[in-house]
This record gives sequence, structure tokens and C-alpha cells, in this order.
Amino acid sequence: MDIQLKENERIDNLELNNLKIIQNEKEFCFGIDSVLLADFAKDIKENSRIIDLGTGTGILPILLSEKTINTQIMGIEIQEQMVDMAIRSVKLNNLEKRIKIIKEDLKNINILFNKGSYDVVITNPPYKENNTGLKNKNLGVIIAKHEVECNLEDIIVASKNMLKDKGSFYMVHRPERIVDICELLRKHKLEPKIIRFVYPNKEKKAKLVLIKAIKNARKFLKIEKPLIIYNENGEYTDEILKIYNKK
Amino acid sequence: MDIQLKENERIDNLELNNLKIIQNEKEFCFGIDSVLLADFAKDIKENSRIIDLGTGTGILPILLSEKTINTQIMGIEIQEQMVDMAIRSVKLNNLEKRIKIIKEDLKNINILFNKGSYDVVITNPPYKENNTGLKNKNLGVIIAKHEVECNLEDIIVASKNMLKDKGSFYMVHRPERIVDICELLRKHKLEPKIIRFVYPNKEKKAKLVLIKAIKNARKFLKIEKPLIIYNENGEYTDEILKIYNKK
Repeated sequence: MDIQLKENERIDNLELNNLKIIQNEKEFCFGIDSVLLADFAKDIKENSRIIDLGTGTGILPILLSEKTINTQIMGIEIQEQMVDMAIRSVKLNNLEKRIKIIKEDLKNINILFNKGSYDVVITNPPYKENNTGLKNKNLGVIIAKHEVECNLEDIIVASKNMLKDKGSFYMVHRPERIVDICELLRKHKLEPKIIRFVYPNKEKKAKLVLIKAIKNARKFLKIEKPLIIYNENGEYTDEILKIYNKK
Repeated sequence: MDIQLKENERIDNLELNNLKIIQNEKEFCFGIDSVLLADFAKDIKENSRIIDLGTGTGILPILLSEKTINTQIMGIEIQEQMVDMAIRSVKLNNLEKRIKIIKEDLKNINILFNKGSYDVVITNPPYKENNTGLKNKNLGVIIAKHEVECNLEDIIVASKNMLKDKGSFYMVHRPERIVDICELLRKHKLEPKIIRFVYPNKEKKAKLVLIKAIKNARKFLKIEKPLIIYNENGEYTDEILKIYNKK
């Protein structure tokens, strides 16, 4: 293997068909949210053209290469260091034919790409509004977690522009933002169709929300069965084990 | 007991401190949604002034008389026959001092009542948009279930007008309407603060949603733990048994 690791970097095994990812311990590392989002999006059709807005280390394209059939996936990321890691991770998995990673500000993709040219947009965006909450001291982590470089509306506008008519939009976010999310999606003609809340266990408030919207679709929303992470004994539920391919 | 029953009417025991309600078998009868909403609203403060928009048989005021302390509850209902049953149910429970029922179109309450005079609005409104779904043949049932006499926005506007600054709004509705609900609540300055989804069991999509909003509040939403009705054995969960005072 001719992939070089840089300072503080490590290769993590995704335990999914031997896929691997390069991460930097000092930077933002992927979490369960990306894994749940990739699984939530597994209804993406064969041969779809997918774009991941804010791909970070490239975790979503790499997971989607396994969860979907013969798709072409473009990952956009603004942070140089992340782009560099993502490109090496793509090589590490021999996925250059299916995944492209480019360094770009998603606010510019309108100019760079043809409007309406994607079947699917997927995104695990920064969750926190720029003026809220405690901030990490690492600028890279701040950009990944807070709306510094782009806010929710920038992402939704970019998504609308990239999607074909009736194209699908998938996002993971925090439940406390669901009102903002619904309002902005509808404002930009991405109609929410499926929402699934993720609860740490049956007794806890929701910690994440998975959303699928369709461009220019008619109104009709389904709130899917709860996605519960731990059972009464503090072990992963069967569904989580299945998502991690351990059952 | 000097309460007269009319044709097709029956008295149902609410199994809550011996409360009773008159219902007509041919008309809309209360369901689990009213019971869950009254329980969801049990954080209503002592001595609050409450108004129930579209009170029907008066089920919410009667349940709230037990779930809240020393509150004054006004029930508004447009259907004569429902008002008549509700008034007799209030008498049947000796609740005339706490509950008033009036026949009125909620689109007129702005004229009849002082704006900003209530601490709490509660409502179990018609769920279905007027142009959707199969309709029951009974006009009373249609009015209770479909947006014939008023739509969601009429109810939200009336609620905003009746509520004090920082007053609370409680509603039960269908999950597929949650995007409309959030959009309209925010439009009319009722900020969603707590949302709880009700799932028939862990494996089914949500069937109801409970919402608490606060007038003129700042943004911050909590998606509460899932409310699950039946356990794996098809029996009521402990939480439902507690709500029905059976545990």
C-alpha cells in the first residue's frame, strides 16, 4: 500500500467489506451520525449520481459506495486538510472510479456544476448555529461542527440547485433544529417526505434526526419508527447491530 | 342524578377519579389522542386560565380538571349538539365552577374575548385537510375530523390571539402534518418547544404527535422520548397504563 500517513493520522477499519478511512485524531472524526445517514440513504437507486456536501474525511462517499449499487459520488469539502485525507482514503479503498473529492466552497458549486445535474444530495452538515454553544479550540473542528463557513440555508439552497426535479435530499441533523430544517426545506421546494428520530434509548429524548426530502414533490410526510440505539441492558439494539453489519 | 340522556347517548366512565362523559354513539367519540394530550399538558401551572378550541364533548376540560390544579377552563365548540352534551357532562361531574362551555365559531373569539387573556390554549383539532381522504357520512363527524369549519391556520391564529405573552399552546395532531404545523406556528409567533411522537409500537411509524409551543419564546426545541403504546406482547406499555391510572 503506497498511501502515506501524516502526523496524528490513523487508518480506521470501517468493518464494512474491509473499507478503511484515514482520520486525524486532532481533527473532526466521523461518528455514528454518518453511519446512520448512509444506512438511511440505502434506498438510493442503482447508477444514481450523488453529491455529498461537506464530505469531511469522505466517510459518506466511502460508506455509500458499499450501501448503493454502481453509483457515482462527488464529495465537496472546503477544508484543505480534510480533502487531502479524503483523497487518500478513496485511493486506499481503490474507489477512484466511483468517488471524486474536490476542494470547494459549497456556496460556489452553482457556478462550477450544472444546475439540476444530480439525482441525490447527501449531507452531514455542521449542526450548531454559529452564535450558539461552546466551541472547540481547533478551527477545523469548529468548521465541521459550527455554521462558520456555511449555514443550513446555504446547504439547502446548494442542494436545491444541484438536484434534478424529484431528486432526493438526505440529511442528518440535531432534532432541536427540525423546525428550522422543515421551514427552510419547504421554502426551497425540497418537500420533507421521511423523518426518523434517533433516540439513545427508549427513555431519552431524541439526539439525532434523519431527513429525506424530494425536490418539487407534493406534501406527504411519514415519521418512521423510532431508531433506538441501546436496549434496556445498555447493549446495541438489533437494528444498530445490523447497520454495523454485526448481525 | 338529574342529567337526561338523549337518543343514542351513553355515559362513559373515564376511569379517572370517577369522572364521566356523555357521548353519542353516532357522533364523534373521544379517543386516546385526547387522553394523551391531557396527560402531555399536565405541566400546566396551578390557577391557569385555559381555553380549549373545538372542545367537542368537553373531554379535554373534564380530563384537565383532574390533571391540573385549580384551573379555569373554557371550552369553545361550534356544533350545537356537542355543546349540549358537553354542558350536561360538566354538570354530571359537578364541574360548573371550573368549566364553562360555549357554542361559538373559533374564528369569532377574537371579537368575543379579550386578546391575550389566557395562560393556556389546548386543542385537538380536525386532522384532515378539507380536500383529502375519505369522509364519514355524518356531518358532525366530518366537522370533528376534517377542516370544514376551520383549518389549522384558523386555530393557530385564534390561539395566538387568545394567549398571553409566553402563554402555552398544546395540540395533538397527525405526524404527517408536522411540517405544516411547525411552519404555521412559527409564522404566528408560537415557537415549538416540545414535540413528542406517539408510536403504536417500536416497529411502527408514528401515528400521533403532541406539540407544546410558547408564544414569543426563543427557539429551542426538544424532541421528547418516544411515547409507545403497545409493548412486544401487544399489551399497553407501563407509561400508557400510568396515563390511564391503571398502574
